[in-house]
Amino acid sequence: MNFQPIDIDGKFALFTEQWSPKVIGKINDYLVKIGKLQGDFVWHTHEETDELFIVNKGVLRLDFRDRQVFLSKGQMFFVPKGVEHKTHADDECEIIMFEPETTLNTGNVTDDKTVENLEWI
Amino acid sequence: MNFQPIDIDGKFALFTEQWSPKVIGKINDYLVKIGKLQGDFVWHTHEETDELFIVNKGVLRLDFRDRQVFLSKGQMFFVPKGVEHKTHADDECEIIMFEPETTLNTGNVTDDKTVENLEWI
Repeated sequence: MNFQPIDIDGKFALFTEQWSPKVIGKINDYLVKIGKLQGDFVWHTHEETDELFIVNKGVLRLDFRDRQVFLSKGQMFFVPKGVEHKTHADDECEIIMFEPETTLNTGNVTDDKTVENLEWI
Repeated sequence: MNFQPIDIDGKFALFTEQWSPKVIGKINDYLVKIGKLQGDFVWHTHEETDELFIVNKGVLRLDFRDRQVFLSKGQMFFVPKGVEHKTHADDECEIIMFEPETTLNTGNVTDDKTVENLEWI
């Protein structure tokens, strides 16, 4: 057992790549992932799971087909399974995600932003 | 579907009771809970699930039988299933928890701090 607290900002400081989620912890079969993003993601759907986003820095725009939702630091949002969405950030944004370990970042599509093997940091 | 962002500090502002976790969201069969605590909890174990704590305000002390771990704002800690522990805070502390919806706050014991029916806020 690891008795070292996990400092979330400290983990964000360990990498600079955007659109490359990292794993910082595991609870049962769920992972806590963190990511940096800027620009536009790909439209996708997670048919089998809800998705949770928490913003750690900057502003995250969540695009749905009929609206946009803006999230800032300390705000979170649940995207229900089956709902098509896309993430966007004008300036670099840091997000924390909580998802089943089987969740692929691009859901039902494969794209140059798809990351199959997640790095633990 | 609710398109309103969930503001974590805003949710903490909705209640004052200590040792009374509130639910602020659900992802699949996991709940996001928030709680305020001060003083000493009861020693307990979750035999069936890991537990995740994130500190939102103040300092959380996690007691184990052979050591203490101190967590401050922006730090998180995973308590593996089966590991006996107890939370403590000298001054009021705010924590965020991710847990299966079946998780009871006092795990394998029943105590005056046991909360069976969690309130959604």
